[in-house]
Amino acid sequence: MPESPIRKLVPFADSAKKKGVKVYHLNIGQPDIKTPEVAIEAVKNADIRVLEYSHSAGFESYRNKLAAFYQNAGLLVESQDIIITTGGSEALMFAMGSTMDQGDEIIIPEPFYANYNGFSIASGIKVVPVISGIESGFALPPIEEFEKLITPRTKAILICNPGNPTGYLYSKEEIEKLAAIVKKHDLFLIADEVYREFIYDKDVQHHSVLNVPGIEQNAIMIDSVSKRYSMCGARIGCVVSKNKEVMQTVMKFAQARLSPPTYAQIASEAALDTPQTYFDEVIAEYKERRDTLIAELQKIEGVQVATPKGAFYCIAKLPVDNADKFAQWLLEEFEDNKETVMVAPASGFYSTKGVGQDEVRIAYVLKKEDLVRSVEILKLALAKYKA
Amino acid sequence: MPESPIRKLVPFADSAKKKGVKVYHLNIGQPDIKTPEVAIEAVKNADIRVLEYSHSAGFESYRNKLAAFYQNAGLLVESQDIIITTGGSEALMFAMGSTMDQGDEIIIPEPFYANYNGFSIASGIKVVPVISGIESGFALPPIEEFEKLITPRTKAILICNPGNPTGYLYSKEEIEKLAAIVKKHDLFLIADEVYREFIYDKDVQHHSVLNVPGIEQNAIMIDSVSKRYSMCGARIGCVVSKNKEVMQTVMKFAQARLSPPTYAQIASEAALDTPQTYFDEVIAEYKERRDTLIAELQKIEGVQVATPKGAFYCIAKLPVDNADKFAQWLLEEFEDNKETVMVAPASGFYSTKGVGQDEVRIAYVLKKEDLVRSVEILKLALAKYKA
Repeated sequence: MPESPIRKLVPFADSAKKKGVKVYHLNIGQPDIKTPEVAIEAVKNADIRVLEYSHSAGFESYRNKLAAFYQNAGLLVESQDIIITTGGSEALMFAMGSTMDQGDEIIIPEPFYANYNGFSIASGIKVVPVISGIESGFALPPIEEFEKLITPRTKAILICNPGNPTGYLYSKEEIEKLAAIVKKHDLFLIADEVYREFIYDKDVQHHSVLNVPGIEQNAIMIDSVSKRYSMCGARIGCVVSKNKEVMQTVMKFAQARLSPPTYAQIASEAALDTPQTYFDEVIAEYKERRDTLIAELQKIEGVQVATPKGAFYCIAKLPVDNADKFAQWLLEEFEDNKETVMVAPASGFYSTKGVGQDEVRIAYVLKKEDLVRSVEILKLALAKYKA
Repeated sequence: MPESPIRKLVPFADSAKKKGVKVYHLNIGQPDIKTPEVAIEAVKNADIRVLEYSHSAGFESYRNKLAAFYQNAGLLVESQDIIITTGGSEALMFAMGSTMDQGDEIIIPEPFYANYNGFSIASGIKVVPVISGIESGFALPPIEEFEKLITPRTKAILICNPGNPTGYLYSKEEIEKLAAIVKKHDLFLIADEVYREFIYDKDVQHHSVLNVPGIEQNAIMIDSVSKRYSMCGARIGCVVSKNKEVMQTVMKFAQARLSPPTYAQIASEAALDTPQTYFDEVIAEYKERRDTLIAELQKIEGVQVATPKGAFYCIAKLPVDNADKFAQWLLEEFEDNKETVMVAPASGFYSTKGVGQDEVRIAYVLKKEDLVRSVEILKLALAKYKA
């Protein structure tokens, strides 16, 4: 089991804080956005006498309401296509466990969410990366690059759309390209779509793998309430697929762990009544943060950044040799007016050795002023580090 | 991934209910006991604005308080020996994943909790059963039986104490016997002790693997709030071990799934303030249920039952050829005054094929009158089934 590449810097951040240095966390995806009140209130008002197991697939009422939510968003999902899980993490583990045996291979465009690696290793699955670089703005590599990697053990392609850590949003053509590959080679297409709502430009749209005609039996969607409702601590997600055989196997995993957490399901079901104004405000807030962050980063000489179209991360290439060392140095040795920043070295998001050494992931989950100050600190730090 | 052997009868129970037949559930371990109010109130009063991730190891405050709880119960546990998990299920998966590689072997006295099999298969681990039969009241087999099964791939012995499905409580001598084996062969001793408080006789005592001198580096304890506080729906458990290397690996699994559920941790931390009177009442209630159930079962000719010393299950040997078929028949074809019972066929708790075919597991989580009526129905059903 590999160590979380982001969390290994935590002791250095703790030390800095003990020395009285304020650390701006650009490294984590924990939003500061308020959880919808309707969710919080539902938990407060729940009349529970015996905190019982729920159905292994989750509350029936929640699954029905969630299906209606997806339908409203244009996704062809019925209640029986959904199994509620303990976070998107468990959803992904169940999806992997239900489609692959030990020794099978999964192709993932890298850089990718570091825990994909952990989940794969825990299930005995081999991750085969296909590189999408910052030079191309993290666009999907050509089909031939995928086909070169397909072996008899290849069972699935996994994407994160919009992407963590890149913020990349796949175009309709790219999703169709992936659909053609999985159809041709009889693979599963697993899409982590937990950032679906976090898209900031008028002219772009999210394209779910669930809406591509012809791959109904190949497509598996991973979702979560964590980001949508700023409810990371609930630990509620789901697996969605039209493939009955896959869902039957997911159900066996779900039964083995008995049920998803009850209070969190109450909050998640109620969250579906969150008014549209909440999302409008949240998206406007994130758009401003993104625009601010990117504009500020682009002012620093030697920094290269691909404008993220979704989620709340971007990858920045810094004028340093080794971003891991630089990130540690920021916490151990640098401070400006008793303040520093914590960034996530991007090497942890690549499984190809030596790639992304000079890149970091920056999460724009802080408020605007803090982002401006954070980038200022980064600029000062880079100037000092190079000197 | 194997199907849950208990849950596969669910559709038959659903059909019976649709026909207007009342089904007494002797098959499940969902207690009807009220959750302590102190836990429910803590959730109601929690002032949450952003439902954030918690620390991957769980709230620090909860771990500290839990360590004090264990110390108070005579267990030598410090806060850093504890990692909070999403239920005992996850605790067991983390413990297995942290001590074994794919292809390794784990010895488990059978009959055992059916999901141990599911978790093992999901981790690529081979379960090697050692039989403890109803004839010996499910006592631990002699050491030689274990030693016959130990191979270079054997990494651990797993016990459930008190046992689900047997209600068997290991004596001090038996725990010491196991300790000697794991010490001699350098194995881990994983003990699922989630039913620790559910012991019904004055002259017996629970012996934790954490309190055996000399096996501090071998012992791993699995715990959960589900049964102790009738909080199955919380999904909070923990892994406890003094072995720092094991705990570091458990932590990597914990980080990959980010954090245990926040609301449930609030409830679990508060539950530690549950007054002793609550437990006194609960244990008295279960003792009465056990005594009633066993006395009633013993009145039926041809039924053999080992008196459980703990937990809230027993295995009963019935005068039928195939308990799976009988359990299904109870739901599909039998009723007395529009009432029937659902039992868990014990074959699902044995991994040795053909063993336990005439046994069922009965959970005594119903109130006394319902237990009496349930056994009456069982008696009538057996008479009719044999005829």
